[in-house]
Amino acid sequence: MFNLISLKNGINNVEGFGCGGVSAGFKKNGAKDVGFIRSDKPCDISAVFTTNKFQAAPIKHFNRYPEGFQTNFILMNSKNANAITGQKGIEDIDFIFENIKVPNMINPIMSSTGVIGYPLDKERIINAVSKFDLDAKDSNSCAEAIMTTDSFKKEICLRVELDNGSSFHIAGICKGAGMINPAMATMLCFIVTDANIPKSDMDELLQKSVEDSFNAISVDGDTSTNDTVLLLANKTKNVYNKTAFDEALKFITKNLSLLILKDGEGSNKVVAFEVNGAKSKGEAKKTATALSNSLLVKTAIFGEDPNWGRIASTIGASNITCDEEKLEIYYDNVLIYSKTHPILDKVTEDKAYKVMKKDSYKITCNLNIGNSSYTAYGCDLSYEYVKINADYRT
Amino acid sequence: MFNLISLKNGINNVEGFGCGGVSAGFKKNGAKDVGFIRSDKPCDISAVFTTNKFQAAPIKHFNRYPEGFQTNFILMNSKNANAITGQKGIEDIDFIFENIKVPNMINPIMSSTGVIGYPLDKERIINAVSKFDLDAKDSNSCAEAIMTTDSFKKEICLRVELDNGSSFHIAGICKGAGMINPAMATMLCFIVTDANIPKSDMDELLQKSVEDSFNAISVDGDTSTNDTVLLLANKTKNVYNKTAFDEALKFITKNLSLLILKDGEGSNKVVAFEVNGAKSKGEAKKTATALSNSLLVKTAIFGEDPNWGRIASTIGASNITCDEEKLEIYYDNVLIYSKTHPILDKVTEDKAYKVMKKDSYKITCNLNIGNSSYTAYGCDLSYEYVKINADYRT
Repeated sequence: MFNLISLKNGINNVEGFGCGGVSAGFKKNGAKDVGFIRSDKPCDISAVFTTNKFQAAPIKHFNRYPEGFQTNFILMNSKNANAITGQKGIEDIDFIFENIKVPNMINPIMSSTGVIGYPLDKERIINAVSKFDLDAKDSNSCAEAIMTTDSFKKEICLRVELDNGSSFHIAGICKGAGMINPAMATMLCFIVTDANIPKSDMDELLQKSVEDSFNAISVDGDTSTNDTVLLLANKTKNVYNKTAFDEALKFITKNLSLLILKDGEGSNKVVAFEVNGAKSKGEAKKTATALSNSLLVKTAIFGEDPNWGRIASTIGASNITCDEEKLEIYYDNVLIYSKTHPILDKVTEDKAYKVMKKDSYKITCNLNIGNSSYTAYGCDLSYEYVKINADYRT
Repeated sequence: MFNLISLKNGINNVEGFGCGGVSAGFKKNGAKDVGFIRSDKPCDISAVFTTNKFQAAPIKHFNRYPEGFQTNFILMNSKNANAITGQKGIEDIDFIFENIKVPNMINPIMSSTGVIGYPLDKERIINAVSKFDLDAKDSNSCAEAIMTTDSFKKEICLRVELDNGSSFHIAGICKGAGMINPAMATMLCFIVTDANIPKSDMDELLQKSVEDSFNAISVDGDTSTNDTVLLLANKTKNVYNKTAFDEALKFITKNLSLLILKDGEGSNKVVAFEVNGAKSKGEAKKTATALSNSLLVKTAIFGEDPNWGRIASTIGASNITCDEEKLEIYYDNVLIYSKTHPILDKVTEDKAYKVMKKDSYKITCNLNIGNSSYTAYGCDLSYEYVKINADYRT
């Protein structure tokens, strides 16, 4: 057995890692917009990237390195995604890494978020790096540097204590907000650990945990050019346990992804869409994802209207095996639709209204066709979302 | 050759058809909510229905008739979709048809739109039918009876004049508004003709024309339980020409679908998304549809922000063959992105702003990969959409 202990802040707690951020003036009012994570020792690295065909320059730059490469430095910036910038986008990253002064830098990685289609302001970024305190352990500043429309910083750190008294750390920071969708999001996530985890476990466990966390959330159904989840292990501590690491990684990815959803642009509510009794996990996922993406479902959640017809209609439209005679729909524990219970009586409706007034709740759809389940997470669609996104660039 | 002459109103111009509508009190202020179309002679009928797995009771009732059946009466109602109402929903339709007094009714059809999951008020509908003037040719009242959140009636009628001096008519009415999506919409459309068209041509031409009209528009990406397009031919006139009929039918379905889009809930702008140079028509359609459904694209259109990065990102996310080095994006005739022209200069940006101020324009995406094209039609997402849909039932 093992214990997961939640620590304050994020990356600063993990041994052998440094991090920080400064303002290069891209954001207003001196907010931090260029950050870094560095490691004393070279790290193994696992990555999951966007499925968008137009991968941003930082991802192409990453993929130029040979399989199994190690790194000790990540540079991040916000306000400019360096996406759809062609060969120049990659050359700009090379230029930056050739002109910054970071001692003993090995295979540096860049990670960007912001507006698509504009060239990086290389000189400003190089100048910002010269202001880094490379000895800092300032997770807050680093988390701030990657924020775009995020309204709060997203950091989680765990100490994993094993039964034999030994322990290791795992911590993550991320940014999200708009364009959050199954198959990743406009989100960057950096997870670091001092555990002595083998590279093959890193790849396996990261892939699995992303599938049920970042790939299960949806703010607006759009998939960005820059989505990135990186896991870095510097193996500073000679401690590792696969089960414990798996649980800790799942905790971090699931909770960071729920923080993204909570901070979805203009969103006020987080709803879990649990689909049970599907013919296959694929079908359960298809339906759960369709529910989390449906505009009509999102607006009904915003309006706190227990209109189960929209839930049912979206299930029917999701192109899976289903039967209205077998379907059951619950809002938390309130059965709101089944064949024998199709019409909302006043008592049920009042109970459902109460559930929908909460900041977060679960809509369960039992298809009663097979044995597979999947849970997707979504949020409401508010006036605020439209306002934020109607003019994002200014 | 032939001429298409646009006539005032709709179904009233087509020989041998009657139509009308009355108020049964489901809508406020005496607005019409129950309507009919009848024919002096039995009609051949072609239909395209929703792909939603939970087809509403009227569609199941229709599908009980044997292949190739004829009809002379359609009854429509709004405010209640009779969807996800189980076997009772079908029995209610049978009950209504057994208890209304319409002389010589053959294989009557019902068509419903409105809220999901409530039983029909049979008595009120039966009572409304007793108030029908079955001799009426009142297309306006019929079109009003099927409106839900529509803000205007949608009717089109054409007289098709052939070179030999003979002519026939074709007319359509429809309703739309929310839940409009490729693969149909919460829309009902009734098209009638007095042409002497063979049943096999009816099936072929209706399917084709729906594919490029009702299936090419998107208001909110949701597909309803009730979507229906019916084509009725009573063959009163002994006149027919396949090419002319095809053109007339395309004109009617395309223009009715654009009226639906124009009337999309809270929508102010109609945008055509033309994708060219795709590897296949399927890929062109996938991308065009993704553009018309993207929340980020819709909000940028609402905000009149020429943020081509969102267009490019959505193309990349649509899982088709594409290459950012080959891509070109136009707003009407303004080239806003190509490899050699990636950054918005002030002059181009001003031109793009001007295009986006218009009520309707075209965004053209040349993938330059293959030879296939598809055009989808979408609208903006406004505060008003959220407001209308946050509490639709009240």
